Order: sequence, then structure tokens, then C-alpha cells
Amino acid sequence: MNKTLIEAFKTAEYPVNGHGKRNMKVLKDAFDTIDDHLESDMYGAGKVIEEFQEKMAKYLGKKSAVFFPSGTMAQQIALRIWSDEKGIKKVAYHPLCHLEIHEQDGLKKLHHIESVLLTEKDRVIEMEDILNMEDEVSAILLELPQREIGGQLPDYKTLEDISSYCKEKGIRLHLDGARLYEVLPFYQKTAAEVCSLFDSVYVSLYKGIGGIAGAILAGDESFTQEAKIWKTRHGGNLISLYPYILTADHYFEERVGKMEQYFIEAIEYASFFNACHRVETIPAVPVSNMFHVHFHLAKEKAEAILLEVAEETGVVFTGYLKEVNDHQCSYEASIGDLYHTVPKDRLMDAFWMLDEKLKAAGE
Amino acid sequence: MNKTLIEAFKTAEYPVNGHGKRNMKVLKDAFDTIDDHLESDMYGAGKVIEEFQEKMAKYLGKKSAVFFPSGTMAQQIALRIWSDEKGIKKVAYHPLCHLEIHEQDGLKKLHHIESVLLTEKDRVIEMEDILNMEDEVSAILLELPQREIGGQLPDYKTLEDISSYCKEKGIRLHLDGARLYEVLPFYQKTAAEVCSLFDSVYVSLYKGIGGIAGAILAGDESFTQEAKIWKTRHGGNLISLYPYILTADHYFEERVGKMEQYFIEAIEYASFFNACHRVETIPAVPVSNMFHVHFHLAKEKAEAILLEVAEETGVVFTGYLKEVNDHQCSYEASIGDLYHTVPKDRLMDAFWMLDEKLKAAGE
Repeated sequence: MNKTLIEAFKTAEYPVNGHGKRNMKVLKDAFDTIDDHLESDMYGAGKVIEEFQEKMAKYLGKKSAVFFPSGTMAQQIALRIWSDEKGIKKVAYHPLCHLEIHEQDGLKKLHHIESVLLTEKDRVIEMEDILNMEDEVSAILLELPQREIGGQLPDYKTLEDISSYCKEKGIRLHLDGARLYEVLPFYQKTAAEVCSLFDSVYVSLYKGIGGIAGAILAGDESFTQEAKIWKTRHGGNLISLYPYILTADHYFEERVGKMEQYFIEAIEYASFFNACHRVETIPAVPVSNMFHVHFHLAKEKAEAILLEVAEETGVVFTGYLKEVNDHQCSYEASIGDLYHTVPKDRLMDAFWMLDEKLKAAGE
Repeated sequence: MNKTLIEAFKTAEYPVNGHGKRNMKVLKDAFDTIDDHLESDMYGAGKVIEEFQEKMAKYLGKKSAVFFPSGTMAQQIALRIWSDEKGIKKVAYHPLCHLEIHEQDGLKKLHHIESVLLTEKDRVIEMEDILNMEDEVSAILLELPQREIGGQLPDYKTLEDISSYCKEKGIRLHLDGARLYEVLPFYQKTAAEVCSLFDSVYVSLYKGIGGIAGAILAGDESFTQEAKIWKTRHGGNLISLYPYILTADHYFEERVGKMEQYFIEAIEYASFFNACHRVETIPAVPVSNMFHVHFHLAKEKAEAILLEVAEETGVVFTGYLKEVNDHQCSYEASIGDLYHTVPKDRLMDAFWMLDEKLKAAGE
């Protein structure tokens, strides 16, 4: 048994996380239904891109939407537009915001925009964080759910309060909605209702939707017009984006209605983990399709146990573990189409075995 | 006969320009040969992207290569790296350089790099332009061929001289090789030979190759390492680029060996135009697969004639005309797979009719 965890996950009879493999089939399945003669978009124009943008604008309840190759590009541009508008090159967000930790400081190096970090790393932004902010900023970015802490959410009332406050103070409010669809069942709101609290909105087209790549940036007409200019500047106005747009549309249709199912399954799945020794999930009760699983055990020990469970039951929870410290490790659980395909008895066998081995590990 | 020129071109029995329609079939044809289980690249890593980058590095004779979603992104980044290296935020290029006229000033607005325009708009950069340059610059960009003036080229000796001069003066030399493959038959050089004169090289994967989108930026290992960081900052390090990479590879294999054929056909095709009244091509004798066709006639008159020729012969040369002034218009001819599919007698009929109508137009 010399497999690594990623190999075990990739070859598992029952991988539990996500929608399945990102391979050629994902592309071909989406394209199979599309006529050979359908023409490509051309540098941001054409039926394919325009119709999808209109559809997403409507879904998000915004006047206008622009398709971007990536969320990184879309969000830097949103914050740049708001910074230029106000003439203040400073924005506020969570310390674990994607722009702060995953983009090689693009916001600072390309746009010379400073960041104000609103709260401690391990909790979501609350109204008081914003009231206590000393800096004047052009915009505040809220990420729903806060991915790096397991996908936590503020109360909906907090969002409304922050939105009102920002309007009053002339601060633009931007939504990092990489996983927006995924939180709608918890909030019991439509996407348009949530987005109405924000001046600009980014949503991802992979993650929960399971497309290939791509993002939507939405807002008023004047905002998206400017966003298109910046998209060209960033090198994002590709001659053809249709491989991404058509797959995004296909999987949007297939999955946007399944978010409630994923959410309910995530709650169940997390409860199985929390019933085991030496495991806890963050949040304890998920508020979307995702949560983080923390093993109170050294990474190599936890890995060995997960591999044994995989070998004996065919169930593989994750393809990786991340070291938190010498005696703790974690991974991100994300419920997609696969969870449903794992027979419940197999899953329970796997959890029973996991618990037994975790219990024994400490003795 | 109320068709527009673009409609006529799209529905033509014999469209002459390019490789054919950019539609779903272009994608499907490339993907048909690829196994369903082939896995996507992931944020710049994985077999699909790494193998293609290695292949292109080898083809270009460079140590290392990075796949980019667009040339706009690749080239701004190349010039940023060279500007940072020297600590001088100034680069020199042709006044009709892509960065100067087609990128919404991304180089200036995102990277704060100034441009020095090396020559007049209607000719290629010569050694003396560089010798006469008063500004100190970190890099010079040469575009081969110079697209906006019909795809003209300097002598190869000029390239060698500029390269030596830049090395001596510590100026980095960057190649805008959007159409590099297309000029190799004229220079009678390999891509690696041409690229050896440059510190960094960009090549496109659509245009002559006919892929969907995408570009390669190549150079030394330290250069491409830094380019990858900037690629993330620009929002270009997409989770998945395989729809572009696989199609690029497919059509690279299919077409890179046809560049000599396209070049010879371009010479023939230009000669047919030059034999007509009121038409001239720039350059008079093409040095690649492309040239510009200038009609010495008002745009609407030329358009009407082209539509009549289309109606009567089924041959459509172009889908658009660009107004140069009240009595001149032009379009870009680009030889690809289609030229070969037009029966020679039909083509000659079309040119005969074109000439008759152009001659009559002035009387």
C-alpha cells in the first residue's frame, strides 16, 4: 500500500469530495449537446458571450454582467474602478481574502491599492469591525462564505446593516461571491436579493457550478463598461472565451438547482465527522456545501489512517491533508455530485473504521 | 442582394481568407482525438500544460516557456520584467505596436511603463531608428512581421545588427512573434534561429496556427519564473487552460508545416490583386502569409463591387472593408487553409470580374 492520498483519491471506487474528475469528459459532455456551427464569441462580442452575460445579470439582479477568464482579474478590476471613482487607493477586506493571500499581491503590484484587514483571521467580518475601521476606504469586499475559515457566514441582518452603512458613508460594497449559489439555501434568499446589498458582484463558474474556468462580474452599466476596458488592459479580453462560456452555461443549468441538496448533504456529512474521535469540522454545522475537517493528529498519522480506510472500504474522503501544526491537520470538504453516489452503507463503514482507527491512534 | 459583406463572407461558397469559421467544430475536431480521461491542468501545473510548454520552448530554442491566455498579458509582463530588471520604466517599439494601439493602454495604466515610438507609422524599424533613439530604455520590442502595415519585415541582417547592438548596450530585445511561424519561410530560418536574437519571445497560438486562443512566452528559466508570478497577478493563472492548450497543440501540429505553402500562395494571391485596376497590396510582394489590400475607391463602392463578385462567382475575398479616406479602403488578407480550397478557375473568374468592375467604377 504505497499509494499517496492523491493517488488513492483519483483511483477511488468512492471519492466523496466534489463533482468528479476535471478531465476531457467534462468538456465533451458539455459540447456534445451543442451544434457544430455555433460561432465563437469574438473579443467580447457575439451571441454566445452576450446572451450568457445577460442571463447572469438577470440571475444576479444586476443591470449588466461581464464574463471574465478569472475571478482574480474580475475582483482586482472591481476594486480598481471603485478606487479610481473615489480617488482613494485603499480597500478593506478579511485578512484571508483571496486578493490578500492567493494573487501574488496583484492588487498592490498592478493597481497600487492598499488593503485594510478588517478582523481576526478566524472569524467573519461583523458590523463592529467596520464601525471600528479608522482608514478611509473606497470599497469593502465581503466574501460569502468566508472560504479560508471553512465557509462561515455572518447573519443576513449583518449584511443588511453593512450595506446600509456603506451606502450612507459612500463606501462601495463588493461581493466576492465565488461560492454565492452555495449560501443561498442557508440564507433562504435569491441571488438577486443578496446581490441587491452590493454595488458589484463577482461569482465563479467552476467551484459549485463545476464549469472549466471563468467568472462573472456584475453591476451597473457604467461599472461593467469600465470593467470591460480594464479586462482588455489585463489581457483578459480573449479572442474566444466560448470553451469556458458554453461549459459554464451547461453546468450552471445542471447544478444551480442542486445547491440545497449539497447544503443538506454537507450538514449530514459534517455530523458524521463530528461523531468521530479527534475530528471536528469548522463550522460545526455547515452553512453551505463546504466545511473544513480538522484531525487532531499529526498529518502523517492521519494520512496513514485515511489510506487504510480507503484500502478497506473504497471510500476516499480527500486527496490531501494540510499540516496545521505538529499534532493537527485539515482539509476542505466540498459537497458536489459525488457525495450522492457513495452508497450509505459504504460511507458508514468508512466512518466506523475511521473512528476506530482515530480512537486507537491516541492510545 | 441586401447582404452585408460579413454575411456574404460567412455564407460564401468560396471564402478566401483564413482557415475557416471559428465555431464549435474547431473545438470538437481537436477534442475528438483526445482520451476522455485526460486530466486538466491545475493552476499552471500538470502534464497537459507542462508538456506543451516544454515542446514550445524547444521549438523556439529557449530554456523555458509559459502558456498564457493572451498575448496582451504575455507581452506586458515581458516588458514589465525587463523594466524592473533595469529600473527604467521605458520601452521602445513601433508606433503601431499592439501594446500602443490595441490594449487600452494596459502597459501604461497597469505597469506605468512609458513607450518610445521608434519610427514612422508606415515603415518597419531600421537600425538607424535605434541608433537615433535619445531615450534610455530597458527593452525594445520588434514585431515580426509588422502587422499593421501589411506584415512587412526588415532584412534579417538588420535583426542581427539590432540584436548585437542591444546586447552591447544592455537593452533587452523582445520579439512580438504573433506571426513568427509565418515569416520563417521568407527568412529561411528556423524559429529557434530567429529567437536566438531575442531575450524574450511571444508567439500566438491562433492566427496562423488557428487555435482557439492563447500564447506562449519564452526565455530563460529566471524570466519565465517571474512571468508566472505576474501571470497570477494579472489573473491569467486559470485553474484550467486545457481547452486552449489542447486545441493549440492540435492545430500547431496540423499547420506549422504549412507556412511555406501559405507564403507561396500569398505571393500568388497578391499578384492577382496587383494585376487589377485600382488595387495595390502592401507589401507589393508578401513576405509572410499576410498582406493588406488597398482599393483606390470609396468604401461603399468597393463593397458593392465585392458583393457583386460574390453573388456571381461565389468567391468572397473578405468580410469587411476599412475606410482609409473618402476614396480609399482596405482589408487584411491572410492566407490559411481556405485559399487552397477555392478552385483556380473560380478564383480567376472572380478576379477577372473584379478588375472589370473596378475599371468601370472610374469611368
